[in-house]
Amino acid sequence: MSELRHDPVQKRWVIIAVERGRRPSDFKKQEITTRQVKTCPFCYGNEDRTPPEIFAIRPDDSKPNKPGWKLRVIPNKFPALKVEGGLNRRGLGLYDLMDGVGAHEVIIETPDHNAHLGEMKVEDVFNIVKVYRDRIADLYKDHRLRYALIFKNYGETAGASLAHPHSQLIATPITPRTVAAELDSAREHFIQKERCLFCDIINQEVAMGERVVLMDDKYIAICPFASRFPFEIWLLPRRHQYDFSLLCDDDLTALADTLKKVLHKLRIALEDPPYNFVLHTAPNYNVRRPGRPNYWETLPYDWHWHIEIIPRLTKIAGFEWGTGFYINPTPPELAAEFLRSANEE
Amino acid sequence: MSELRHDPVQKRWVIIAVERGRRPSDFKKQEITTRQVKTCPFCYGNEDRTPPEIFAIRPDDSKPNKPGWKLRVIPNKFPALKVEGGLNRRGLGLYDLMDGVGAHEVIIETPDHNAHLGEMKVEDVFNIVKVYRDRIADLYKDHRLRYALIFKNYGETAGASLAHPHSQLIATPITPRTVAAELDSAREHFIQKERCLFCDIINQEVAMGERVVLMDDKYIAICPFASRFPFEIWLLPRRHQYDFSLLCDDDLTALADTLKKVLHKLRIALEDPPYNFVLHTAPNYNVRRPGRPNYWETLPYDWHWHIEIIPRLTKIAGFEWGTGFYINPTPPELAAEFLRSANEE
Repeated sequence: MSELRHDPVQKRWVIIAVERGRRPSDFKKQEITTRQVKTCPFCYGNEDRTPPEIFAIRPDDSKPNKPGWKLRVIPNKFPALKVEGGLNRRGLGLYDLMDGVGAHEVIIETPDHNAHLGEMKVEDVFNIVKVYRDRIADLYKDHRLRYALIFKNYGETAGASLAHPHSQLIATPITPRTVAAELDSAREHFIQKERCLFCDIINQEVAMGERVVLMDDKYIAICPFASRFPFEIWLLPRRHQYDFSLLCDDDLTALADTLKKVLHKLRIALEDPPYNFVLHTAPNYNVRRPGRPNYWETLPYDWHWHIEIIPRLTKIAGFEWGTGFYINPTPPELAAEFLRSANEE
Repeated sequence: MSELRHDPVQKRWVIIAVERGRRPSDFKKQEITTRQVKTCPFCYGNEDRTPPEIFAIRPDDSKPNKPGWKLRVIPNKFPALKVEGGLNRRGLGLYDLMDGVGAHEVIIETPDHNAHLGEMKVEDVFNIVKVYRDRIADLYKDHRLRYALIFKNYGETAGASLAHPHSQLIATPITPRTVAAELDSAREHFIQKERCLFCDIINQEVAMGERVVLMDDKYIAICPFASRFPFEIWLLPRRHQYDFSLLCDDDLTALADTLKKVLHKLRIALEDPPYNFVLHTAPNYNVRRPGRPNYWETLPYDWHWHIEIIPRLTKIAGFEWGTGFYINPTPPELAAEFLRSANEE
């Protein structure tokens, strides 16, 4: 069982793997996670090397955990959090902790070991974002869970330990700190102005134009004004929408198209860089906590979901860990211009 | 001139290099910063390859910017911030920005290209921490500057672009967000309990013992309860001290000894890992801002300076950027036990 521990200085929860922690000797040699796995556990025929699937898109006549699927959702084999049990909140002197309850799932996006999201068919990307929506909706029925975090690590530098295209979902009994800070900002802006912070940002970016990467009827991709990293991109719905799990299939089809285009631009503009993306949807507002008015867990109509895409280009990320302070060597205007003109054949 | 831009969502200032931004093409090939520089700009005889020194420890009969020195402080050749000019605070629609005013200095710690802080003589480490103290005190005379951040990147993975032992100082017109959050926590704890948060942590850690790496009369090194990273270490003075720039020479000698020991333990326990450390001292409380009671810029007697050391062992740092959420595979108790028993010959 892992633990969620609270840092009283940073006021941040950290997942600590107490049980099967990596021993110090595991770090001694620089790890090289081989990516030429002959028998990739995510490829056809190796379904028995993963835990049994939670969900799959597969022909009616095919059997679970056998080949033939188009997409699979499985529990992570080495989960950071486990679904069983209560939170068991407790104190330890000054400190607070609880059991590592939650979900940790893997979305195997395609049977094709070498596929790239930016080059897949729109209908296949649609299946992926649809499963994001449906897994979030399903997990939010569990009132112990406060947040479902969808993210993707692409490339070894970005933290991917397997090359086969996949994304991950971690559902936690807390809202991650960065998301909580954003929810607070959006709420505060709304209280002041009775307008959505992100809608205001979108309006200004459309008017100024110079940081827009692409824009269609439903979505906009921008390099944010205060980008922390070169070529950082936010992808937002142009119409105000607070909850990703309420998206209709039409919205998802349009999103699949835009996401694919943005990732394709990134791939051709920067020669297939490693990247992370994270979906910032609303927290689980079904949760009602007696006696603790954590107010963005009421209906978060002032929230505006979005996807943050971060190419991992710079190593110059030393002191950022310890400071929350960033130096970005590439202005977002330059990055957006370059991405706009990146050729989409 | 670089710009400081404010992210209205994360409420975070980012330094953006507007002028000599890295062009997209700079990222195309994975950069390899050669570390076998034949003519290292930080070695004897190459002093003219750096900007003129701000300070040096050198024999009385030696000339500035010539060999013979024991330690040099120079302006960064490619500074993120520049000392000249006013802040020029302004708005741009929804956004806020100011000119990139500040200081960016490099402390060349020794003439020995291959030295390691953990293996240097205590008196040489003393010179380094003494220069930290003196540079902070000097820069805090400038009332435009709110914070002086001392940090060290050791090893390429940790962001060091030159192998020669050096640390850096960035002084900014804002307090970095992570430090600001810690200052707020410490103030809040003090208001509630009239005790220092860090003193309370130290007391509990001494009593429990299991997360203590080493402890002497003046200092303590612990793996924090909610460590974000494997083998993360905090080094704190056992006696309450809020301002690093007020340390006396005796305190600095003891600090040099402890810092050296901790880094030596890290080096032998984990086979010379790359690491970052950051000094979290008090903000510049000489600054008095009319009309804006940013209250931890009054005398921060409730602060407790410390050094955070982060070995860079895991690549599994993908989604952390986008969430502020961490999964640590090594419990701090295990890490501390291993470091305690690491042999110091």
